[in-house]
Amino acid sequence: MDVNRIRIVLVEPQHPGNIGAVARAMKNMGLGRLVMVAPEQYPDPQAIWRAMSAKDVLEAAQVVDTLDEAIADCGFVVAATSRDQRIPWPVLDARRSAAEIAAASTQTDVAIVFGREDNGLNNEELMRCNLHLAISTSDAYSSLNLAMAVQVVSYELHMLAVADELPAAPDAQWDAAPATQENMERFFVHLEQTLGEVGFLNPAAPRQLMPRLRRLYSRLRLDEMELNILRGILTETQKRIDPVDWDARAREPSR
Amino acid sequence: MDVNRIRIVLVEPQHPGNIGAVARAMKNMGLGRLVMVAPEQYPDPQAIWRAMSAKDVLEAAQVVDTLDEAIADCGFVVAATSRDQRIPWPVLDARRSAAEIAAASTQTDVAIVFGREDNGLNNEELMRCNLHLAISTSDAYSSLNLAMAVQVVSYELHMLAVADELPAAPDAQWDAAPATQENMERFFVHLEQTLGEVGFLNPAAPRQLMPRLRRLYSRLRLDEMELNILRGILTETQKRIDPVDWDARAREPSR
Repeated sequence: MDVNRIRIVLVEPQHPGNIGAVARAMKNMGLGRLVMVAPEQYPDPQAIWRAMSAKDVLEAAQVVDTLDEAIADCGFVVAATSRDQRIPWPVLDARRSAAEIAAASTQTDVAIVFGREDNGLNNEELMRCNLHLAISTSDAYSSLNLAMAVQVVSYELHMLAVADELPAAPDAQWDAAPATQENMERFFVHLEQTLGEVGFLNPAAPRQLMPRLRRLYSRLRLDEMELNILRGILTETQKRIDPVDWDARAREPSR
Repeated sequence: MDVNRIRIVLVEPQHPGNIGAVARAMKNMGLGRLVMVAPEQYPDPQAIWRAMSAKDVLEAAQVVDTLDEAIADCGFVVAATSRDQRIPWPVLDARRSAAEIAAASTQTDVAIVFGREDNGLNNEELMRCNLHLAISTSDAYSSLNLAMAVQVVSYELHMLAVADELPAAPDAQWDAAPATQENMERFFVHLEQTLGEVGFLNPAAPRQLMPRLRRLYSRLRLDEMELNILRGILTETQKRIDPVDWDARAREPSR
């Protein structure tokens, strides 16, 4: 994917706040090229305010008079459309469209075209595009805010860009090494011994206690530092207690 | 996934407009349960205005005093956090977190907790959560608007909910049947013949013309209606032309 060859085109955006929010959403996801076709109210302080730290995207943005100008040099043009608006045309959801856009951007400039807040794109505009992109929504309410739609599409492109970098498991960026199985076994022996000494585990009738504790601590995927803390607690506990003598207890008839 | 067991929790949201935008983003993606912890300015007309057709989500929303109240009955609590904010804790990106949330929602109530616009969640709040969710962003600008963050997370949950329903190829919802290979072959024969008659294709020296046209029309994945249109054009063209006689041409020395 070549993000520098991907531009976001807004056709006649009506609210300057949305333009700013679009710029922020784009920069959050690593996109920088914004083109506006005949915005109703721009430049505007609302746009700058909503852009927050993406003012550079606004400053670099182009304003043109027609959609044709905005997409003239693009070899792949994608129109964002709502389900209601669709004319029979090749249509894909945002995730699958992002894959097409990413692939195309290695060969040509790509435009992703978003319509007016109230009416979207008209049929003439839709028919200028190679692909229609329809963000999947709930049936109950399918109309996304303009900047939200740009956010979702930009996010999908960003996810493709970083696909190989994101850790697949929650512990991948952990601050200590995972506990080895050998150390886990030492811990379980230590735990069982201590639980016997404090009187919680009867060695003669251990029931399901150790399997349950094994499951609990295994699920945790402890790191070495955490394991050392737990071992330390056991050691200190052993020092401070008067260990139960289970053999003696067994000889006491009333217990 | 049970969307009714998934709630969005906003901790001390500062801008009522964001609350409305959150409600809209949720409803767009099929979520309905919103809980606010000590919102700064709520109820507020800005919230209602930005919610658009998601006013019902605002009306059903709960306002509570503390995060503990908001998550008391939840068996799985996920905190949205920015990369800068992370304390060493299990952390996943939005897509992988959504999978965990969806799975957990079949067994227990789940809260997804979002912090303040300016400062996010503090460490005490983060430590109340089972998992931290960090939306992957560009390094250049990692701070998403609150409602945008809710949009991305809600979108990921929705994508899991509809995963099996979305067409994988752009023609899956087409309005005519795809052209059969048999009819495509008839078309190519007809095309080759017509191109010969109009003088564009020399049967004695066809070069790469037909392979190129085959590739072009095959890539299109024509439907039967489109194929009939193209055949009709060829037939009408044949009727109106004076066909080139290539054998005669071959005998003309100067051509």
